[in-house]
Amino acid sequence: MLKLYFAPGTCALASHIALAEAGADYALEKIDFKANQQNSAAYLAINPKGRVPALVTERGILTETPAMLAYVAQSFSRAGLAPLEDAFAFAEVQSFNSYLCSTVHIAHAHKMRGHRWATEESSFADMKRKVPETMGACFALIEQKMLRGPWVMGEQYTICDPYLFTIAQWLEGDSVDINAFPKVADHFQRMSERAAVKKALAEQAA
Amino acid sequence: MLKLYFAPGTCALASHIALAEAGADYALEKIDFKANQQNSAAYLAINPKGRVPALVTERGILTETPAMLAYVAQSFSRAGLAPLEDAFAFAEVQSFNSYLCSTVHIAHAHKMRGHRWATEESSFADMKRKVPETMGACFALIEQKMLRGPWVMGEQYTICDPYLFTIAQWLEGDSVDINAFPKVADHFQRMSERAAVKKALAEQAA
Repeated sequence: MLKLYFAPGTCALASHIALAEAGADYALEKIDFKANQQNSAAYLAINPKGRVPALVTERGILTETPAMLAYVAQSFSRAGLAPLEDAFAFAEVQSFNSYLCSTVHIAHAHKMRGHRWATEESSFADMKRKVPETMGACFALIEQKMLRGPWVMGEQYTICDPYLFTIAQWLEGDSVDINAFPKVADHFQRMSERAAVKKALAEQAA
Repeated sequence: MLKLYFAPGTCALASHIALAEAGADYALEKIDFKANQQNSAAYLAINPKGRVPALVTERGILTETPAMLAYVAQSFSRAGLAPLEDAFAFAEVQSFNSYLCSTVHIAHAHKMRGHRWATEESSFADMKRKVPETMGACFALIEQKMLRGPWVMGEQYTICDPYLFTIAQWLEGDSVDINAFPKVADHFQRMSERAAVKKALAEQAA
């Protein structure tokens, strides 16, 4: 059985929702960030990066959300979570997820994780101040150029949708008003109502 | 015919090498960063993010290196650039590339692109000072936990290899000694000798 290591409030939710959407049989293991458990020897043996998520499979351990999402889509292909038979359409899915991972998540991370890239408190404060601007710019681009509607890729619900929902959850804490982006706000609302999303959120809160 | 938008010295080299390895028929279009051409109206119509690379296909335009690399591997499957029939092995490839994109490239970007995440000159200088440490830590992890040898994924050359080579090229400018990482240094040397790598580098220098 698959086992997902997660922490509440992190991007691990995207893979968690995808597993639920796929109807996968999975176990959960919560990592306590307040106790710095992600950097414990036991967890570093799972994921030497000291981050979540990590997905334990019978073949080995996978990390990195875009890779895990594609893995879920391919492993549970009957769930139809990605256009697996169309290299171009699949690349569009992956491009969107890569943008979330390498640009949007990174913009957000500068609010609380400035120590990854700088040393001075003044730099951390500077980075933190810019987060509403950078996250706002990312979501303006998503709204205007990327989100086709009703789902990210159009009529087909894909692994882009749980990932966008996960990161859109962070907007309020980043002082960005989701209602400035009507398509994103509508997407967020419809995602909130899906059974798989409710299941994952309830499991993470348990 | 495929057309790759690139700028010399950027991560576009990874997709360029992959196209050459695949034996693809492709055209090149150089974007002049010194003239800020990446933010011209004409280029923003190609890629509204104002970044390279972008790959024009007959179906539309793709961006984001990990997505483009997987697209090349899938579109030219006879070149054997990824384990396409094995969802777990493919996810390992994608996980490595996602790490390069969202952690290693980002660490490097703090040297010259601090303005993306902060406003003050003092923050830019602080970020710049930390780059040798962060890039060194990334490559220590690659050396110790990721690069299987002789290629990233072991015996099979994959789309991980041109991407690692591309980012390893930046180490010297980032004041990190590649020789501190013997497997990475060996990989870099062997990559330099490949015909596809020589071809791509020559085309970018032309």
